[in-house]
Amino acid sequence: METHPRRRYVILAEGKFGETSSKTAIGVIRYGRDAVVAILDSTKPGRNAGEWLGPAVDIPIVGRLEDALPLRPDSLLIGIAPAGGKLPPAWRATILAAIGAGMDIVNGLHEFVSEDPEFQAAAATHGVQLIDHRKPPERFEVATGRPHPPGKRVILTVGTDCASGKMTVTLELRRAALAAGLDPVFVATGQTGIMIEGWGVAVDRVVSDFVAGTVEWLVTEAETKGDWILVEGQGSIDHPAYSGVTLGLLHGAQPHAMVMVHHPTRELHHGFEAYADRWNAHVKSAKELIPAYETMASLVAPAKVMAIALNTQGMPEGEARRLLAATEAETGLVTDDVVRFGAERVLDALRTGLADLP
Amino acid sequence: METHPRRRYVILAEGKFGETSSKTAIGVIRYGRDAVVAILDSTKPGRNAGEWLGPAVDIPIVGRLEDALPLRPDSLLIGIAPAGGKLPPAWRATILAAIGAGMDIVNGLHEFVSEDPEFQAAAATHGVQLIDHRKPPERFEVATGRPHPPGKRVILTVGTDCASGKMTVTLELRRAALAAGLDPVFVATGQTGIMIEGWGVAVDRVVSDFVAGTVEWLVTEAETKGDWILVEGQGSIDHPAYSGVTLGLLHGAQPHAMVMVHHPTRELHHGFEAYADRWNAHVKSAKELIPAYETMASLVAPAKVMAIALNTQGMPEGEARRLLAATEAETGLVTDDVVRFGAERVLDALRTGLADLP
Repeated sequence: METHPRRRYVILAEGKFGETSSKTAIGVIRYGRDAVVAILDSTKPGRNAGEWLGPAVDIPIVGRLEDALPLRPDSLLIGIAPAGGKLPPAWRATILAAIGAGMDIVNGLHEFVSEDPEFQAAAATHGVQLIDHRKPPERFEVATGRPHPPGKRVILTVGTDCASGKMTVTLELRRAALAAGLDPVFVATGQTGIMIEGWGVAVDRVVSDFVAGTVEWLVTEAETKGDWILVEGQGSIDHPAYSGVTLGLLHGAQPHAMVMVHHPTRELHHGFEAYADRWNAHVKSAKELIPAYETMASLVAPAKVMAIALNTQGMPEGEARRLLAATEAETGLVTDDVVRFGAERVLDALRTGLADLP
Repeated sequence: METHPRRRYVILAEGKFGETSSKTAIGVIRYGRDAVVAILDSTKPGRNAGEWLGPAVDIPIVGRLEDALPLRPDSLLIGIAPAGGKLPPAWRATILAAIGAGMDIVNGLHEFVSEDPEFQAAAATHGVQLIDHRKPPERFEVATGRPHPPGKRVILTVGTDCASGKMTVTLELRRAALAAGLDPVFVATGQTGIMIEGWGVAVDRVVSDFVAGTVEWLVTEAETKGDWILVEGQGSIDHPAYSGVTLGLLHGAQPHAMVMVHHPTRELHHGFEAYADRWNAHVKSAKELIPAYETMASLVAPAKVMAIALNTQGMPEGEARRLLAATEAETGLVTDDVVRFGAERVLDALRTGLADLP
């Protein structure tokens, strides 16, 4: 957990801005409380983030760090999340230049900038901070399976893949819950969520024995802050690489209900695009995974998937609405694109479904 | 992974020798290739490990480290595995005394002796090694879901609890496979298995994002050493604290078949004895968890539970045989106590069940 003052970011998204792997950049722009003064992507100089994120967003894309300096950034945020979380070697010069310009480095990769001797030396010279949001807490406690206090509603987003919009759906649910006069708390479980919210733990970086214990602790903390505990999900229970993180998160959070997040046009698991010949690299349908999630939840704390959130980005509106209606008909669950059409219907499904909870 | 020469151990099992939490001590005595010259447990001085492990075992239990020194030990092995893996503070003096007597320290706890400044200083003074078998490799690679080569048979032990005998069953299966003229390899995934076998990774200590990738790598290595890859399971898919480790291991190993290990008289999950009021602290039946494991396997690499191994230790033989027969009748699966009656029938069930594999 960590909080920090408001920052003025340049976001490094070299070669990838607007793609799925720039989800950190996009999440921080859309939902963060810090200012983003520029995007650094040498393949798109002179363009604007608003071209991807809509006219409400006006952030210039620059090709070189020095072109961002007149905008007075105080921090460089590493804004992509490649599989494995490694720092691309080509970015070292950019990071050193940012340190030289007096900027803090804010990083969410598995590879920690704060443990790199060259960055450490440069940061010491220039008096800047190296911040690794994926660094886990020094806390080695296992979960106890504790029940939630009365009056609390714990919701977990689950999905059919990683990088498919679970954090975004969770944040949109928070927005709707606030508008409805509820008392929601967003529980960040990934580096982007932490950058947005200022606290949380990147559970995929936690030692596996302590994933559930860490999530149980986060939820316990959140229950002191509000009543509707909206836990950001991670990965997918069928993901060949990350399913263990997903299950530890599910059993540690012990949600009362789940919201299934699905990207209907994605065929291969994120990061597995090279393995089309492996059937387990292919994304399954929401309908196929709902019973798997409910079976797993039933082993520790029974919970139903009570709504579906589809990511219909890029789909014509008529087609999107037809797909939402067809998914509702097929599953019997309220289905919406909460970014495009709002999270109210999904929230209502949760409120109705959980009305009888103590 | 690590290999080491043959050692002469004193095993520290203070207050716990013979109990479930001394499973490291018992595993190393039963299956290890190193000599065990004494057990250190001040609550049982003058007794003998053979009282618990049978007349083939003749290892004195001493109440003080100095009473073991005439037996010329060269290493102190920390032989209990408490939940959370922390070092009981009372043991520090014993460890320092062992270092002072020129002994290496061999540790499987989450708390690393090699990173403790006081132990480091003493070890440097006395020229001994501090060995932490739970320390994970410096290897941050995610799983790819790769298929196994033809001719390989990958078997994973799964269970209804942690500390219920999965390692033991796996080792007994290896013994039976060797006797049957097969070419088995034991894949150690926990600290005791590593102490026994000399290589492996304690997957519960691996960063959660890399559990499946680490197991995939271990299995790939094992496939270069033999044909029957016998993977030690961890935890249980319904365990409130450790289920994520279990699922990462299942999806990383992609077994062709599973063997379900169950401790029929255990009512509460190991380490959860204080939570009898929480239903999720209660151990489920093998029959109840078999479909859950098969459902989870089916999401990445389909596999069936092909046999059941019950731990009937302490049960009169007639009662044990009736329970085995009743479980067979109830599940339709070959069921045996492989420690008590041999692993041949379980191995035969696997050979028959996998006969059609390429």
